Amino acid sequence: MYAAGDVRVESVPDAHLVEPTDVVVRVTRAAICGSDLWPYKAMEPTEGGRRMGHEFIGVIDDAGDEVRTVKAGDLVVSPFLFSDGTCTFCRDGLQTSCVIGGLTGGRYGVVTDGGQGEAVRVPLADGTLVKLPVDQDDGSMASLLTLTDVMGTGYHAARTARVSPGKTAAIVGDGAVGLCSVIAARLLGAEQIILLGRHPARIALAKDFGATDIVSERGEAAVEHVRELTGGQGAHCVLECVGLEQAVTTALEIARPGGAVARVGVPQHDELPGGIPFWKNVTVGGGPAPVRAYIEELLRHVLDGTIEPGRVFDRTTELDGVPDGYRAMNDREAIKVMVTL
Amino acid sequence: MYAAGDVRVESVPDAHLVEPTDVVVRVTRAAICGSDLWPYKAMEPTEGGRRMGHEFIGVIDDAGDEVRTVKAGDLVVSPFLFSDGTCTFCRDGLQTSCVIGGLTGGRYGVVTDGGQGEAVRVPLADGTLVKLPVDQDDGSMASLLTLTDVMGTGYHAARTARVSPGKTAAIVGDGAVGLCSVIAARLLGAEQIILLGRHPARIALAKDFGATDIVSERGEAAVEHVRELTGGQGAHCVLECVGLEQAVTTALEIARPGGAVARVGVPQHDELPGGIPFWKNVTVGGGPAPVRAYIEELLRHVLDGTIEPGRVFDRTTELDGVPDGYRAMNDREAIKVMVTL
Repeated sequence: MYAAGDVRVESVPDAHLVEPTDVVVRVTRAAICGSDLWPYKAMEPTEGGRRMGHEFIGVIDDAGDEVRTVKAGDLVVSPFLFSDGTCTFCRDGLQTSCVIGGLTGGRYGVVTDGGQGEAVRVPLADGTLVKLPVDQDDGSMASLLTLTDVMGTGYHAARTARVSPGKTAAIVGDGAVGLCSVIAARLLGAEQIILLGRHPARIALAKDFGATDIVSERGEAAVEHVRELTGGQGAHCVLECVGLEQAVTTALEIARPGGAVARVGVPQHDELPGGIPFWKNVTVGGGPAPVRAYIEELLRHVLDGTIEPGRVFDRTTELDGVPDGYRAMNDREAIKVMVTL
Repeated sequence: MYAAGDVRVESVPDAHLVEPTDVVVRVTRAAICGSDLWPYKAMEPTEGGRRMGHEFIGVIDDAGDEVRTVKAGDLVVSPFLFSDGTCTFCRDGLQTSCVIGGLTGGRYGVVTDGGQGEAVRVPLADGTLVKLPVDQDDGSMASLLTLTDVMGTGYHAARTARVSPGKTAAIVGDGAVGLCSVIAARLLGAEQIILLGRHPARIALAKDFGATDIVSERGEAAVEHVRELTGGQGAHCVLECVGLEQAVTTALEIARPGGAVARVGVPQHDELPGGIPFWKNVTVGGGPAPVRAYIEELLRHVLDGTIEPGRVFDRTTELDGVPDGYRAMNDREAIKVMVTL
């Protein structure tokens, strides 16, 4: 990406091993993330461009001498950040705060190759990658690809918002993260699942995924509608999925006293109206999802057919079509674009 | 209270039963709360004045026909709000959000008599009051008085910040709530208890209560000091107890990735810098403490001598001394003032 709206497919030096803990993955599937759209909307022009993509599945071509858990020929899925798997935060299941990788040192496209390309050097391969027990053309590949980010992010929202059997979950936002949050809320046993969204195709998919109620108003009218649907009390669990305008304030307002609000994705504003949750003892949590912690569990649910998050991909392209994929997602023509290689 | 700095002791109409669920309590002990100081600092002058006090213990003089759980002659302790004990929020242990009482309809001094007085009509007596199994001059009376608010508030902070055995807890603020939070953190098993405060007498008391480390710097220097004390990582549990200036920002900054921050007391500013907790997946919770939910449990710990929160009272006065008690707390001459009647 050279500037807002300017994505180009270009040749770069071949990915190759640098550290003995690296592998090189030949990418077979990649995806465009909602967070890739923030620079697509706003990036200042740069001379050298920025390498893009952090969601991919592929086959290991070459593995460093110290790599133990995966080997050449393995089909692997990567979380959107790489992490060492051994530090105190990785052991706690918070790989986004890995002291070597994570948000600081573990960014694809910045520290190493981007995932929207033919091959990627993956540092810290043992801590990062999970071997997939299927063939690279398996019918579940779209769903498995969501484990790199979007499904794990929705699951993180649901866990952080303390979804459990019998609870009411409200999901603010009908993008790919919001849709995966519907899947996650159902998986964790929510009794009522309210989606706040307006786009007909996305609403239809949300209903398929388990949404029981749809709220298409905005602002105060949305808050009123959620209250009506919840006996005047609000939702126990609110999952703020980078949704509508003023989504965070709406999320805080629709939470039931004593409930929990989770924020995920990449928030575009910093200040929170702290008084709204305070007076009703609502907990506000969330952050960048440690999707690595969830891959094994969600993988089982994908393979046994319990969840089918791959349905959020409503467009597929080859590498040459990536620039138009960005355009289509940015124009809301497509929910999410998968890249096949 | 007639205006900032203007507290008077005056005669008011005798407390009397209004509803059949009321009792009248003859007050034997009352206290001045840190939150009483906000109007003491800033209240606009009013014609009729405002009745004060929401922390008291007393003997029931008269009970309405529908009161079942307490009776005339019982010594009782009241939480700082009254609540019905039967609504969905009371059953959840969130009596501050009671649909009849709580923050909306359950305020002493507003809806009914103030606690800094000779007698109080207590609405919803069955849901509100807890009978004390001791005599009104028992040596534990100061500690029992803290169950009305300050000790329950510190305990709420510790619970909300998820204090548990082996964790590091940092307490921001050395006022009475901060000191009770130290007690609560120790009670819940924290291994390291860091108090952020500057006042020598309060620090000494905090150490007696179980604080293992003291941080007396402010701002960025305080953050650095806490990081040094925690292996560079920050505290798992941060209890923001209406402490230093910029206390909320400091609290958010010293939290360990994946940790929890609890806010209690009456915050004097609304906006939260949401980005600080977000990027490290820190949960921010808390609110007005549902102290009613904690009275029975804390009562046991007071009576068996495990905790002695009454030591936060470093001054005692009779009713006539209440105006000077406000002054002394406001000037930080006294941590907390007990009123004997």
